[in-house]
Amino acid sequence: MQRIALLERFSRNFNGGGGSGIPKALLVVCAVSGGAGFVAYSEAVSNNTPTVADLTETQIKKKRVVVLGTGWAGTSFLKNLNDPSYDVQVISPRNYFAFTPLLPSVTSGTVEPRSIAEPIRNIIRKKKVEIHYSEAECIKIDAQNKKVYCLSNDKTNLKGREEFAVDFDYLVIAVGARPNTFNIPGVEENTLFLKEVEDAQKIRKTVIECFEKADLPNLDDEARKKLLHFVVVGGGPTGVEFAAQLHDFLAEDLSKLYPTIKDFVKITLLEGTDHILNMFDKRITAFAEDKFKRDGINLRTGSMVVNVSDKDISIKDIKSGSISSEPYGMIVWSTGIGTRPVMIDLMKQIGQGNRRVLATDEWLRVEGSDTIYALGDCATINQRKVMEDIADIFKKADKDNSGTLTVKEFQEVLKDICERYPQLELYLKNKQMHSLVDLLKASKGDIKESVEVDIEEFKSALSQVDMLMKNLPATAQVASQQGVYLANCFNRMEECQKNPEGPLRIRGEGRHRFHPFRYRHLGQFAPLGGEQTAAQLPGDWVSIGHSTQWLWYSVYASKQVSWRTRALVVSDWLRRFIFGRDSSSL
Amino acid sequence: MQRIALLERFSRNFNGGGGSGIPKALLVVCAVSGGAGFVAYSEAVSNNTPTVADLTETQIKKKRVVVLGTGWAGTSFLKNLNDPSYDVQVISPRNYFAFTPLLPSVTSGTVEPRSIAEPIRNIIRKKKVEIHYSEAECIKIDAQNKKVYCLSNDKTNLKGREEFAVDFDYLVIAVGARPNTFNIPGVEENTLFLKEVEDAQKIRKTVIECFEKADLPNLDDEARKKLLHFVVVGGGPTGVEFAAQLHDFLAEDLSKLYPTIKDFVKITLLEGTDHILNMFDKRITAFAEDKFKRDGINLRTGSMVVNVSDKDISIKDIKSGSISSEPYGMIVWSTGIGTRPVMIDLMKQIGQGNRRVLATDEWLRVEGSDTIYALGDCATINQRKVMEDIADIFKKADKDNSGTLTVKEFQEVLKDICERYPQLELYLKNKQMHSLVDLLKASKGDIKESVEVDIEEFKSALSQVDMLMKNLPATAQVASQQGVYLANCFNRMEECQKNPEGPLRIRGEGRHRFHPFRYRHLGQFAPLGGEQTAAQLPGDWVSIGHSTQWLWYSVYASKQVSWRTRALVVSDWLRRFIFGRDSSSL
Repeated sequence: MQRIALLERFSRNFNGGGGSGIPKALLVVCAVSGGAGFVAYSEAVSNNTPTVADLTETQIKKKRVVVLGTGWAGTSFLKNLNDPSYDVQVISPRNYFAFTPLLPSVTSGTVEPRSIAEPIRNIIRKKKVEIHYSEAECIKIDAQNKKVYCLSNDKTNLKGREEFAVDFDYLVIAVGARPNTFNIPGVEENTLFLKEVEDAQKIRKTVIECFEKADLPNLDDEARKKLLHFVVVGGGPTGVEFAAQLHDFLAEDLSKLYPTIKDFVKITLLEGTDHILNMFDKRITAFAEDKFKRDGINLRTGSMVVNVSDKDISIKDIKSGSISSEPYGMIVWSTGIGTRPVMIDLMKQIGQGNRRVLATDEWLRVEGSDTIYALGDCATINQRKVMEDIADIFKKADKDNSGTLTVKEFQEVLKDICERYPQLELYLKNKQMHSLVDLLKASKGDIKESVEVDIEEFKSALSQVDMLMKNLPATAQVASQQGVYLANCFNRMEECQKNPEGPLRIRGEGRHRFHPFRYRHLGQFAPLGGEQTAAQLPGDWVSIGHSTQWLWYSVYASKQVSWRTRALVVSDWLRRFIFGRDSSSL
Repeated sequence: MQRIALLERFSRNFNGGGGSGIPKALLVVCAVSGGAGFVAYSEAVSNNTPTVADLTETQIKKKRVVVLGTGWAGTSFLKNLNDPSYDVQVISPRNYFAFTPLLPSVTSGTVEPRSIAEPIRNIIRKKKVEIHYSEAECIKIDAQNKKVYCLSNDKTNLKGREEFAVDFDYLVIAVGARPNTFNIPGVEENTLFLKEVEDAQKIRKTVIECFEKADLPNLDDEARKKLLHFVVVGGGPTGVEFAAQLHDFLAEDLSKLYPTIKDFVKITLLEGTDHILNMFDKRITAFAEDKFKRDGINLRTGSMVVNVSDKDISIKDIKSGSISSEPYGMIVWSTGIGTRPVMIDLMKQIGQGNRRVLATDEWLRVEGSDTIYALGDCATINQRKVMEDIADIFKKADKDNSGTLTVKEFQEVLKDICERYPQLELYLKNKQMHSLVDLLKASKGDIKESVEVDIEEFKSALSQVDMLMKNLPATAQVASQQGVYLANCFNRMEECQKNPEGPLRIRGEGRHRFHPFRYRHLGQFAPLGGEQTAAQLPGDWVSIGHSTQWLWYSVYASKQVSWRTRALVVSDWLRRFIFGRDSSSL
């Protein structure tokens, strides 16, 4: 109930007359509140550069939007934001956008690290919107005082980290997630992740170092086997693609350069469930498992990691319960995502402390806050359930307050209800029904003429609908579409304030300002190595093989964020075809 | 005198009947001598891979050559070694050859790190000679027992370093040098060097980090100026090229991406002497100094660094003696080379403890050892002086022991003397004399007919000759030519043992086995930024400007070690022309 109350409160603020609830002036709050050693942003006044203090004079009406993160969601938001009435501040520890679907290719040196990175300053430089970028990490979000606290990077030998605070009118959180270790002991210390470009570089270096060490003159076979045992934990798309890339790298390139030790190499892929790629069609899973077996990849499904020491990985067979230990050279951990500490702290502030992931509504607004948006891997959309709102839906549809609904009444609100509750549309589609009316008919039995149902009949007709609700996957595609969506909302904020375009409010008056976010799945690839790729395209169309690999090449080339990275990635692929992959320990 | 004695001893061993002094059998000495915890190489016996223990059975006659280093000298030696009767073991902490003249280009991202690196295993794989590579650092050379002790790398998170020892019949040392800090306090801790590819990557990252930090919102102008003060110490070719590259990177790329802070940037180039590039022609120096002044590079000649703290660099003006301190963001230290600890230890063992750099004779054999060769930056050739050997020279030429030399006697030994003492040939050339006879004539006054001189007249005629002796510069060109030279010696070891091809021995009988090493200077480039390059070509031909830049491009492209790196470097240049340099902090 509390959640509904909160939601209603800020829905009202936002959509109704709520626009006026947002303070328009006083962009820079000079007081240092909750300081904890932080230097106020207002101290940045300098003589030569235009600062926020100057800007307040000339651009008093600009709303300050702070964007956290330069990944898929943040960059896509920035690229699509066109309304020059915002003053945008981007904060991210990474001064570039990385085309993460090519990270597995970076681990084998097929693609160069810099080829998939586009400096964020290159992207924002071309915009007409005023966008500033600061290379720093947000370490605390103060939702109450609309302030974020940041700490600059300390990657190189420049001494000390700078601290600063930034005020916002709107906050767009797109900080992504961290790898999920499930608190398994030793994972953090002894395994490598595959989330950042630096991770991919480190994996590549470690593979080469394992080979170089295994080729030293004074080792026995056991030591060589240990060093050349590569373990991949997680049979999702990333883990599978990495295992495939690693296999190709070893088979096509390293085996030629290290002929005397190539027979000691073993790749083990661990997956907790019974099958790898279990979010894909069964045909793809079967093909991948077959191919990996043919390639000699040691596929162990139904296996759970229970401990990782600096020498061994302990694996529990879920069926038998037996635990075995194996020495390893390198472990890559790719088992899904967890919540960043800064987000956990925010969730506590806004009454989401008992959730695992930050929840937003269908408009990507953080539940419990009226000025904070979150998108990408750092949040999930909390789609409202039909059954929770069933009384309100009935009431809204029953215009004449008769206690029963007629077909005509239905049809008037049908479109709005389907937009507000997409699971309903999906349900009808799955059952091959053309409208809600068919559903009601079905629930009442085969009554041909005008249908009229009461609330109980209505409930029973819709009782199964919410079972079709699914969280969106944590993919680049979702994050990117959310960025586009939110930028369009920001671009038309004032326009839609006057002429709301969204569906009817079920638990309130009038209409929602915007259409809710709707994800369009464009398909997903699973590269399996050896120039073979599987793809699951919209409409459950499955395509596997060499031709799909070429589709993969063309889609990934076309999706590059700039002509520069496109040219680089394509030339990297060419280079790999001609010269193979590089094995220098750089 | 001691040095001469040593030289003579091992000259005798090597060239006379000395070939027999080299133990041919017993390649693997199993005893662990001077062990200090080292695992003997003989323990490496394994079942599956061919090991040294097996090899001794089948290849008993193969001489084991250990090569330390995969830089210019080592790689050039390996590329040119063709005699399959050697069993070669390469040991280097770097499993790739790096085209170091392009390192300054890597600092600005004009060229990618991996484009100038060729894996050493790629190079040796194509050879018919049996070559093994181990990625390890040589930490001790035992000249007496013909053994090197090695330690594997520890770059990645692979735990522990492996120790092993390798025996040799011949040792080829090509470990290069370390940056010379002149023991100035704080240099090691606070400055960046530019010797390895990793150094160049670190410099590039630091430049970007300096800009990112200086663009943070809460800094005052002083802090921004500090962060954007880039100091280059050393006005040699590397320091000058780096300063030029840095200037181009800032002017052409970063100034567009960081428009608000670009006016805070300062580049300071410090040089101890009165001019930069003082090994070049004066026209080049003048052009470079003019260009740097126009570019706004703060050129401070006659300046010596006396201390570097984590915040300031203290500079002494040599003329006035005054010391000033300046805050900095980054310092690149490029003031020449020093000797590696492993070399200092070796020098003590072989009686060169009082020298600064390891000395070899003109055949690249280490003085004081008869099986160790050294080439590249880790050694200098100790060219014998004419005046030291003057009595022997006179005696050798005076065949009839008459106490005077005739023209005929001269002409018989002239070629040999000029080959053995190249400074003599240079001296004649400088004085525009056609032969030694002219010199003798000149020393005796204008006597036209047959010249006859005694030892005192001979001495006086040659007294100035040794002043022309110069150490070879520490360049890639020298190292590379030395590698070719030494590989050719190894290829024809037996052949030339039977038929010596070198000059007459002055202090001994017969001929030297090989011609001594002779350096052919092919010219040197000094890229000055803005697509302008100066070049000093053979014959003191000077070329400056855009056309020279194109010469630079074509020479450096043609000198690449493989088609792969050639293609990569050229495509990197193309990319830079089209898209500019990348500014991501990768």
